[in-house]
Amino acid sequence: MKKVDNSVSIGTQSLEQLQHLLRQPAVGQVFVLTDSNTVRNCYPLLQRYLPDHTLVEIPAGEEFKTLASCELVWNQLTEKAADRFAVLVNVGGGVVTDLGGFCAATYKRGIRFIQVPTTLLAQVDASVGGKTGIDFQGFKNQIGVFQEPVSVCIDPTFLATLDARQLKSGYAEVVKHWLIADAAAFATQRQEGVLIKDWSPIIQDSVATKQQIVEADPLESGLRKVLNFGHTVGHALESYLLLQAGREILHGEAVAAGMICESWLSAQRGLLSAAELDSIETFLFSVFEKVQFVTMETDAIAELALQDKKNSGSTINCTLLDGIGKALYDQPITVTEIAESLRYYHRL
Amino acid sequence: MKKVDNSVSIGTQSLEQLQHLLRQPAVGQVFVLTDSNTVRNCYPLLQRYLPDHTLVEIPAGEEFKTLASCELVWNQLTEKAADRFAVLVNVGGGVVTDLGGFCAATYKRGIRFIQVPTTLLAQVDASVGGKTGIDFQGFKNQIGVFQEPVSVCIDPTFLATLDARQLKSGYAEVVKHWLIADAAAFATQRQEGVLIKDWSPIIQDSVATKQQIVEADPLESGLRKVLNFGHTVGHALESYLLLQAGREILHGEAVAAGMICESWLSAQRGLLSAAELDSIETFLFSVFEKVQFVTMETDAIAELALQDKKNSGSTINCTLLDGIGKALYDQPITVTEIAESLRYYHRL
Repeated sequence: MKKVDNSVSIGTQSLEQLQHLLRQPAVGQVFVLTDSNTVRNCYPLLQRYLPDHTLVEIPAGEEFKTLASCELVWNQLTEKAADRFAVLVNVGGGVVTDLGGFCAATYKRGIRFIQVPTTLLAQVDASVGGKTGIDFQGFKNQIGVFQEPVSVCIDPTFLATLDARQLKSGYAEVVKHWLIADAAAFATQRQEGVLIKDWSPIIQDSVATKQQIVEADPLESGLRKVLNFGHTVGHALESYLLLQAGREILHGEAVAAGMICESWLSAQRGLLSAAELDSIETFLFSVFEKVQFVTMETDAIAELALQDKKNSGSTINCTLLDGIGKALYDQPITVTEIAESLRYYHRL
Repeated sequence: MKKVDNSVSIGTQSLEQLQHLLRQPAVGQVFVLTDSNTVRNCYPLLQRYLPDHTLVEIPAGEEFKTLASCELVWNQLTEKAADRFAVLVNVGGGVVTDLGGFCAATYKRGIRFIQVPTTLLAQVDASVGGKTGIDFQGFKNQIGVFQEPVSVCIDPTFLATLDARQLKSGYAEVVKHWLIADAAAFATQRQEGVLIKDWSPIIQDSVATKQQIVEADPLESGLRKVLNFGHTVGHALESYLLLQAGREILHGEAVAAGMICESWLSAQRGLLSAAELDSIETFLFSVFEKVQFVTMETDAIAELALQDKKNSGSTINCTLLDGIGKALYDQPITVTEIAESLRYYHRL
């Protein structure tokens, strides 16, 4: 297994690590943030490891990743007169860890926070890298800051609280980390799919890959953009379907489709062999169902890729694969090429 | 004159410096934030130095240093599709520079901002040190982050737009910097009072003093607390009178009274001689009118000092003078002592 930073604890012992951290003398009041799901499904597993604390709950769902929810958290901190020694423990998926991180980073110009991600997606992705934020005016993570938590406690026991679709959604990011940086893991570990008994080593490798990339480029000026693989097309697809009642898909489902499209774009440029493209497609379709759209929609979906935060002006900067296990960032592609890749995906 | 960082430009040439900065190729869209006062009084002086830009205006006054005003700014940035190359220029007093700094530091996890402080208070205090923030639930600067602007442009020409009371309010911070760190300036420069022809050297020394202190302790873990001199009692007085219609006083007026009270506390502990205390009092009363309250109110005012952000639990940590030009932070004092100091001030 790859090594992770000391600040990240992975495995069934990680809640004991949390307990230990919260017992340190420099820790003042403890606040625990959950959403309306994790307060029922996850908080009970955690409770016996926690000292006296104030429980704060926000409604579950991306539609509540808003300033209004932040106000709810800041209100609680203010009412309890939380001072600079207070610690906020965020228990939940990406919405809770991103929003809680932002609230902590901005309350009295910053109190400490600990991430306890409870979905696979948050465990391998959202809780590492120091990105905090909320949605604003329909734009994802439009308002936020970069701030590292003091610790991330990842207990795979929480994954039992997820349904299969949510689990797969997180798994897409695991696969992404293999494709951009770990050819050996892709070769040997993909056979298991999501039918995994012990998630700890898989999560640990995935977190370690992300940490290596983030540490080399904390402010996303270059290398870190490789983490965007699958997301240029994936985000466009996710945004498009989000606006159509009943057609919403999960983030990882969109990213899985996006990775196929962007692998095809990589192959078109001669960066990926036909055999590599085939092995990626075959594997992803063995785990993820095909995302449904019609040919007529491909242009409208592709247009949405122009709005990505990583673009400068009208150029779309995409991350492509340079063989399995290696990625190239800032590869300019056109809206037309994205539409073509979607039509290719549609025909598969 | 003391030296200031390159990022700070002081004098009538500073707007040319701003013009130069905004012409750099790495600068994308430019946004200029004003309030309803500075858009009339200051923006016209600035306009010819600015490239094409979007003007954003918030209502003037501390009561608008709120999340709602932030939303107004974030909305404009979002509507104009500001990307990571955008720069926000904040033109105004402390409310505009603090709030604008916070909006920039959090928009898309941080765009660059330039401070153009237009009040003496903001010029010597609010625009240096990387503190950004807004008020929340009646608490000043409850939500915010530490983030340095890329540049601070201080043009004393703007001071002509201030009335005498506002000018004096900023002058209190100049005096504070002398008392905590610059005995020579206190000895030689106080005779002029606020009847100063060329403010540039005064501002430059004051900014340099603050920078030295902030650089030694950017996150306020120790030394930086000396900047709080006069503010423990001052904030309590300001907060108390703010809640009483028609009795509100300006920040600097409260700090001037607070400096007298805290100098008296320093003298009580043998840290300041009777002659030093007398010279501080005589000078401050030559510039500032006495703040009006009755003896009956001193306990209620003193109680408010307990709520200060810098306290830990029920101890009030105050900054005291160890002779003129030297300060000691984290000096524990009681509510009773604060009430006594207010009664002393009242008798003067």
